Amino acid sequence: VRNVRIRIAYDGSKFYGWQRQSGFETVQEALEEGLEALVGARVVVHGSGRTDAGVHAMGQVASFHVDTKLEDERLLFALNHHVPEGVVVRDLETCADDFHAQYSARGKRYLYLVRTTRFPPAFGTEHCLWTRGTLDLREMRRAAQCMVGEHDFSALASAGSPRKTNVRKISGIHIVARRDGFALIVQGNGFLYNMVRAMVGTLLQVGQGQRRSGDTSALLQSKDRSQAGPTASASGLYLRSVLYNEVVFAHRGRSRDRAHPGLFP
Amino acid sequence: VRNVRIRIAYDGSKFYGWQRQSGFETVQEALEEGLEALVGARVVVHGSGRTDAGVHAMGQVASFHVDTKLEDERLLFALNHHVPEGVVVRDLETCADDFHAQYSARGKRYLYLVRTTRFPPAFGTEHCLWTRGTLDLREMRRAAQCMVGEHDFSALASAGSPRKTNVRKISGIHIVARRDGFALIVQGNGFLYNMVRAMVGTLLQVGQGQRRSGDTSALLQSKDRSQAGPTASASGLYLRSVLYNEVVFAHRGRSRDRAHPGLFP
Repeated sequence: VRNVRIRIAYDGSKFYGWQRQSGFETVQEALEEGLEALVGARVVVHGSGRTDAGVHAMGQVASFHVDTKLEDERLLFALNHHVPEGVVVRDLETCADDFHAQYSARGKRYLYLVRTTRFPPAFGTEHCLWTRGTLDLREMRRAAQCMVGEHDFSALASAGSPRKTNVRKISGIHIVARRDGFALIVQGNGFLYNMVRAMVGTLLQVGQGQRRSGDTSALLQSKDRSQAGPTASASGLYLRSVLYNEVVFAHRGRSRDRAHPGLFP
Repeated sequence: VRNVRIRIAYDGSKFYGWQRQSGFETVQEALEEGLEALVGARVVVHGSGRTDAGVHAMGQVASFHVDTKLEDERLLFALNHHVPEGVVVRDLETCADDFHAQYSARGKRYLYLVRTTRFPPAFGTEHCLWTRGTLDLREMRRAAQCMVGEHDFSALASAGSPRKTNVRKISGIHIVARRDGFALIVQGNGFLYNMVRAMVGTLLQVGQGQRRSGDTSALLQSKDRSQAGPTASASGLYLRSVLYNEVVFAHRGRSRDRAHPGLFP
């Protein structure tokens, strides 16, 4: 029995989120069933965290203990043969026995993709958020900078499972202008339920002139979710990568296998 | 009654091709029904040509005569409200009465998108062709150059409706390397049935070393379809634009509304 970690990409529009739920097709279940078919025994796959229905991943990380003679490279190819369309295991490697995709994680990076073309896109409506009209990216960046740092993010979190504290540290938010919209990249040591989507919903109001960037700090201080913008659609959200204290999947060039074309110039 | 032309993008995976067929959802039908709902009378929409089931379009052009008081810009927005997801009317303008999307066309440009990542993409499997392994793009470009010019393309055409001649003029083929595959762009004064897909199927064999680039001229001279490569999947094919002797849709910057993100750097 050895401990194995994998990096996974999935199309959230094809699954009912990450976590196993009876009666719904989820990514965790797809991986566990693929592994069971492969090694003939039940395997529990631990993800770095859940993603909701409709949320995508380019670099979700999961770990599991498995008893197989297959080497890493062969296990990788075999597992990809046993998962449904819309899930791809991009990398796989044996790791130290105490590595755990969730408990070892020290942060995450998310990407949120917004398109602002005149009309909704013909392609990929489930893979971005579309909104008509121009946005003031400068004001949005100003508001985003107020969210960077250690704050109580209660104002930007949906009611979810109870937790000790709503304080999280956001180490950076970048808004990258695209010819047809923008990509928002946010990194932090942890995220509350729906937090990135509430951030985007709030920043979009700033970009549309419905909210002043200067009010962002007061908004956070209010700790009142009803003061913030709406929860933006799951369709635009991607779990980009999970951060660990050790280098993971170093054996392969990061650039070779992009999970999604054209998100970064 | 005035003559109107439109530029349309559509996701071929959501329709059973362009041409109206009873019992199948097609793009032509979607547009005709949208117009009928809008103006209260039957309107016949003429496309520049058919596209098969699964084939996409970024710049299909169509024209129709319509009796409405709506100005162009308002007709454009109204029509977009009356077409299903997966079809977008990108541009609309009133044109000379003798303009006909098919009979006035002097050529077309197609794009074919191939990805060569280690594993099938998690996103967009219906919007590209995926094939494993590296391809020799230099050899593919050599073979492609043999296809440029005026030739009888019987060797690269599926049996279709009868036609006077199988001679067509290809003015250019470009293979643009991408980090995760390539895009092939081909322009010509006309294309036989499945011709681009047979070109790609043949060029892929060259890229994989199963066929020599130097044999391409002899292949064309054979006029024998069974000598060429397979018909590549519809999923990778996009009607990029239709060429006319006059400038069409000049009032708008071409770059503002890309139908598909990231296809061109």
